Amino acid sequence: MNSLFLYEGKAKKVFQYTDNTVMIFFKDDATAGNRAKEAVFKGKGELNASISAKLFEHLHKYSIDTHFIELNGKREHHCHQLNIIPIEVVVRNRAAGTFSKRYSVETGTTLRNVVVEWCLKDDALADPPICDDAIVALGITDVVTLNNMRATSISVNNILTQLFRRVGLQLVDFKLEFGLNEEGKLLLADEICPDTMRLWNNQNESFDKDLFRNDSGDLLAGYRKVEELLINTL
Amino acid sequence: MNSLFLYEGKAKKVFQYTDNTVMIFFKDDATAGNRAKEAVFKGKGELNASISAKLFEHLHKYSIDTHFIELNGKREHHCHQLNIIPIEVVVRNRAAGTFSKRYSVETGTTLRNVVVEWCLKDDALADPPICDDAIVALGITDVVTLNNMRATSISVNNILTQLFRRVGLQLVDFKLEFGLNEEGKLLLADEICPDTMRLWNNQNESFDKDLFRNDSGDLLAGYRKVEELLINTL
Repeated sequence: MNSLFLYEGKAKKVFQYTDNTVMIFFKDDATAGNRAKEAVFKGKGELNASISAKLFEHLHKYSIDTHFIELNGKREHHCHQLNIIPIEVVVRNRAAGTFSKRYSVETGTTLRNVVVEWCLKDDALADPPICDDAIVALGITDVVTLNNMRATSISVNNILTQLFRRVGLQLVDFKLEFGLNEEGKLLLADEICPDTMRLWNNQNESFDKDLFRNDSGDLLAGYRKVEELLINTL
Repeated sequence: MNSLFLYEGKAKKVFQYTDNTVMIFFKDDATAGNRAKEAVFKGKGELNASISAKLFEHLHKYSIDTHFIELNGKREHHCHQLNIIPIEVVVRNRAAGTFSKRYSVETGTTLRNVVVEWCLKDDALADPPICDDAIVALGITDVVTLNNMRATSISVNNILTQLFRRVGLQLVDFKLEFGLNEEGKLLLADEICPDTMRLWNNQNESFDKDLFRNDSGDLLAGYRKVEELLINTL
C-alpha cells in the first residue's frame, strides 16, 4: 500500500496509508530539555519500537484500547490513525524530573497518591501544565473525554507498575498521549518506551532516557535490559 | 491589646493579637512579576483596605465565611487568625496575564467556562501551577478542603461578577487565598482588591494593578474610581 509522509517529530516519523491507518517509524534521535540536548543512539529506534509494541500488546490483554495494530519489520508500528488530543498526560508514582524541579521536591520522594498531570502539547510554549477547567475553556477537549483519559491513565499505571515490578523495576513516571479515531472513540496513542517513562531498579538506578539527560550511563545498555526483561516475562 | 509583629509580605504587614486574631496593615508598596518591578503609591494601602473591606462585607451578606472582622482606622483589617493554605486560587472569566502568556491566548478572549487554577504559593519557585492530585500527594491539603475551596471560589466569582457588572466593570480574573481557623473551619482569607483582581470597563480599560504592570495609566486614579463606584452602590 502506498504511504504519504505526514509528520516528523523528535523521535518518530509518521506516514499515512489510505485506509485510516498510519505507519510510525521510530528514529534513533534522542532529545532532552525541549531540544536543548540532542544525540543519535544507533539502535534506539528498534529497541523503543520493540518495547512499545510489547507494552501495547500487554495492555490489550487488559482491554485497554490503543492505536497499535502490529509491529512492521523492526522499527515501525502499524497503527490506527487518530486525531491526537494535544495534551501530554504525565502519570507519577514518585517525584522526579520536572515535578521535582517545579515544586522543589527531592527526586525519588514517594507520593501519597498517584498524580495525573496534564500538559499542553506545544513545544513553542514548553508544554506548560494545564488544568481541567482550562482545557475545556480553551476547547481543547471536553470533560467526558478528560475523565476517560484520566481513568485510562490510572489503569495503565496499575497494569504497567505490576508488570515492571515482576521484572524488578520501579515505574517512577511516564507520559501518555490519546487520540480519537474516525468514530470518535478514545484510544491510547503514541508510544510507551524508555524515552517516555522513568524505570529504576531497586537501587534507584535509571533504565530510561535519564541516562542521556543526566549523562549517568549507557542509554542503549539500559534500553536493551528493559527489552530483555520484557521478552523473558511476556 | 498588645500585638506582635508576625510577617511582612509584598503589600501587607501582619501583627498577631493574643486572642486568635490578627491586624493586617495595607502597605503602599506595589510589586509586579514576582518583584521584578517595584514602586510606592502613596494612598494605595488605604484604598485597598477600604475596597477589600467592602467586598468582604458584601460576601458576608451571601454567607461566604471570611477571616474579616472589621476595618480598623483607614488601612488596617482586624481578622481571625488562620493557618493559611499555601495555594493561590486564580479564578478567570476572560484570558489575561499569566494565562494568556502561558497558553498563548489573546488577552480578553472569553473563556467557555470559568477557570479555577491552583498555584503553589512559593515566591522562590515563582508560584507554579499545581493540580489537585499533586496538592494532595504532597500533603498540602486534602481533597475535601480543595473541593470546598473550588466551590467557594466559584460562588465568590458569581457574587463579585454581578456586583461589578452593576457598577459597569467586568471582573476578568482574581486571586483568592484560604485558611483554616483553630477549629479547622475553612475561611476566605487575604484581601480582594485591585492589586489581586483585573477589572475592566466596557472599553476593556484597566482599573487594577495592570495600570502599574503595563505602565498604562494612573494606578491611584483607577483604584479611587473602583472605591467610589462601590461606595455609591453598597
